[in-house]
Amino acid sequence: MTDKTRQPASPQRRKFLRDAGLIPAGLYLGAGISRADDQGADAGGLAGGSMMDYVAPILDTVRVGVIGAGRRGTTIIRLLAGIDGVDVKAICDSHAPAIDRARALVAEVGLAAPEFYGSGDYAYRQLLERDDIDAVFVLTPWSWHTPMAVEVMQAGKHAFVEVPAALTLDEGWQLVETSENTRMNCMMMENVCYGREELMALNMVREGVLGELLHGEAAYIHELRWQMKDIEEGTGSWRTAWHARRNANLYPTHGLGPIAQYMDINRGDRFDYLTSMSSPALGRQAYAAREFPPDHQRNNARYICGDMNTSLIKTVRGRTIMVQHDTTTPRPYTRHNLIQGTNGVYAQYPNRFALESEGDFHEWQHDMTSLEERYEHALWKELEAEATASIGHGGMDFVMLWRIAWCLRNGVPLDQNVYDAAAWSAVTPLSEASNADRGSSKDFPDFTRGAWQTAQPVTVT
Amino acid sequence: MTDKTRQPASPQRRKFLRDAGLIPAGLYLGAGISRADDQGADAGGLAGGSMMDYVAPILDTVRVGVIGAGRRGTTIIRLLAGIDGVDVKAICDSHAPAIDRARALVAEVGLAAPEFYGSGDYAYRQLLERDDIDAVFVLTPWSWHTPMAVEVMQAGKHAFVEVPAALTLDEGWQLVETSENTRMNCMMMENVCYGREELMALNMVREGVLGELLHGEAAYIHELRWQMKDIEEGTGSWRTAWHARRNANLYPTHGLGPIAQYMDINRGDRFDYLTSMSSPALGRQAYAAREFPPDHQRNNARYICGDMNTSLIKTVRGRTIMVQHDTTTPRPYTRHNLIQGTNGVYAQYPNRFALESEGDFHEWQHDMTSLEERYEHALWKELEAEATASIGHGGMDFVMLWRIAWCLRNGVPLDQNVYDAAAWSAVTPLSEASNADRGSSKDFPDFTRGAWQTAQPVTVT
Repeated sequence: MTDKTRQPASPQRRKFLRDAGLIPAGLYLGAGISRADDQGADAGGLAGGSMMDYVAPILDTVRVGVIGAGRRGTTIIRLLAGIDGVDVKAICDSHAPAIDRARALVAEVGLAAPEFYGSGDYAYRQLLERDDIDAVFVLTPWSWHTPMAVEVMQAGKHAFVEVPAALTLDEGWQLVETSENTRMNCMMMENVCYGREELMALNMVREGVLGELLHGEAAYIHELRWQMKDIEEGTGSWRTAWHARRNANLYPTHGLGPIAQYMDINRGDRFDYLTSMSSPALGRQAYAAREFPPDHQRNNARYICGDMNTSLIKTVRGRTIMVQHDTTTPRPYTRHNLIQGTNGVYAQYPNRFALESEGDFHEWQHDMTSLEERYEHALWKELEAEATASIGHGGMDFVMLWRIAWCLRNGVPLDQNVYDAAAWSAVTPLSEASNADRGSSKDFPDFTRGAWQTAQPVTVT
Repeated sequence: MTDKTRQPASPQRRKFLRDAGLIPAGLYLGAGISRADDQGADAGGLAGGSMMDYVAPILDTVRVGVIGAGRRGTTIIRLLAGIDGVDVKAICDSHAPAIDRARALVAEVGLAAPEFYGSGDYAYRQLLERDDIDAVFVLTPWSWHTPMAVEVMQAGKHAFVEVPAALTLDEGWQLVETSENTRMNCMMMENVCYGREELMALNMVREGVLGELLHGEAAYIHELRWQMKDIEEGTGSWRTAWHARRNANLYPTHGLGPIAQYMDINRGDRFDYLTSMSSPALGRQAYAAREFPPDHQRNNARYICGDMNTSLIKTVRGRTIMVQHDTTTPRPYTRHNLIQGTNGVYAQYPNRFALESEGDFHEWQHDMTSLEERYEHALWKELEAEATASIGHGGMDFVMLWRIAWCLRNGVPLDQNVYDAAAWSAVTPLSEASNADRGSSKDFPDFTRGAWQTAQPVTVT
């Protein structure tokens, strides 16, 4: 993990792109498709065509670099060690104790001596200079995601970046344009899209069990006040600061990713506009007052992010999605994962359904056996033993990494492309803008520049 | 029930008010408080001062007239027969079979020979001419609620009107102004506010169990497609038409009323603005195609009301409320009734809670025994036996009617006043406007004209 106290040098990344000479003049606009918005970014992108359904040259072995060996990085490194055809070549973290732990981990899981980089915030650039790396995992604090992913792609490597991929609409465009210009994949690793229940629900949607889709509900309701006790390192050491910086849905994609896949977002449908409202921000002040001395930095911060944010998204085809964020109040964890169609509804937390085709829909049904027998996803049928034995969110991390390697080694488009990364991440800046504007609706850019109209739905076969 | 095929004659009710000479010229603006909006209505109201916490002259016996003896009217008449100090003097319905059923019911429950009125849509005006009636219950199709309630008050009688009380902002103002000018109560009978769980939650909120309130969720999710088979009479015979007339949250108050009471809406807080999105409208067309012949009137209608509507409300104190409406898709019934504060959350469907003060809040707790022992509401402690033995939504109707009679006979303000009726009902027209305007937020009028700032919370003691 890079130094939490530093932010990435902010040399207007797009300007950097051009200064670096990577995008030949005259190739900024391509294929007659122009940007549908004016988000203040330069014209650009599409130099090499759309990245929709892009298949990169097939890799025999996926040679990997990892930036960030903190909480998340440790999990990913451990899992990568067990995936066929993946070779971890290099690991970078600017925090010396993290590198020490990574060295021990590497020895424990039997990885063949990767190189370590760790001197300063920009040591990752040494990693990027290597010519024996195909793909880089970016597992750093949020504000580093886009800058690092851009540099990864510019260095001729596929970028796999933690959520959220982008913090602003401009960052989303940077990812899109860099991916299009460099012909490198940029996948936001929305692991929840590989959850067992989520993939089963995807199958149900594809089989028409729910009928025509109408409405979805997504959330990241996860009480994380305890992370405020991360002071020197750890996720809370930087996540906490966002609660004093933005009043928004800070972390939308875990709940939203699966709903977006059910609804064919960017592949037949598209996010159209969003409206958002935050509750008062009271919980973190109260927690700080209870848990820290009066003069502690946690008591000197002013937390402005409403404890509960509720956002609504409308799609071009008229579907609606509710997306909530609450990491502050005492509530049980939920991502909702509610998907509703003309024939019924499926939801999680707890797993349940009500379907006209299955008999009485006036009561929630909790016995999932029959649905599992019919709609268990092929990935989980194949990987169940390894996945359930693995660490990482009930196996979804293992399945995601397995699938990434499989796609790259078999010439199959990744299930999540750069347009998904940009669109799903855009909920944060749009919710911030709407919330600050009395809930007025804000339009999503069409990051696909029209390609959503003809792209085929994700199958995740 | 009045003839469903007729709409109320629409002689601009406010104009009618003036023509009738009930409001002396020069008294339209009162007490230096002016209307905060410009909803296109005339200036008016407050001739007699605010109706906030109004106490009408005490009644020894509440002499009652009932307009509408359909599904709802039958329930209410049966319950009124069992409430001390209530005397049903007259019953009106323009539908002859309803009157016949009402006559049989009256004999069955032993009511002392009320008068019946039933000839034509305006027979209720004969009922209003009687001088031996103190209060009139308006239990008719939605579009008759405001016109009839206005006339009830103009006739010097308290108006108790079914939900929703008003269909437009202008109708809301008509109720407010008529109530203020006539000094007659206008209560929308939101029966759910008298539910056992809802009143227990109100106690919990008042006792501070949830901490500072942040967010609430309300719904009317109730599959009612079967009502489309009501053709000649019955709720579906007119409710169905609204699905072809408005794309809105058609029926918000059952879920919203209790949340509004928890949050002291109109008594310390106020609805500020609202945004709304509807899903596609697919379910009723599909149901009609399945259940009716191709040339049936249900197949000739064009249903425009999105199957699922989700609206968000922000209050002046910054709280947020989600309000959903879906009477079309196959889903289990829910009103949500979720209320969330800094100390935890309470919700229904199923009844559950997660409270920092009660131990582990990371899992929903479903054993309500301990909360019931501590927070059962006094009304339910007193009325449990009668309420649970009664018909009508698990006893809440009985408790509501008992409470209405008790307030009128003991000089206590009603728990729901005309400002609540107007504000809660305003969700429908505001959601329609927002939904038609890409989710842009729409402001609530301040029907209280500032009185919300000093009014005391509802106690329902």
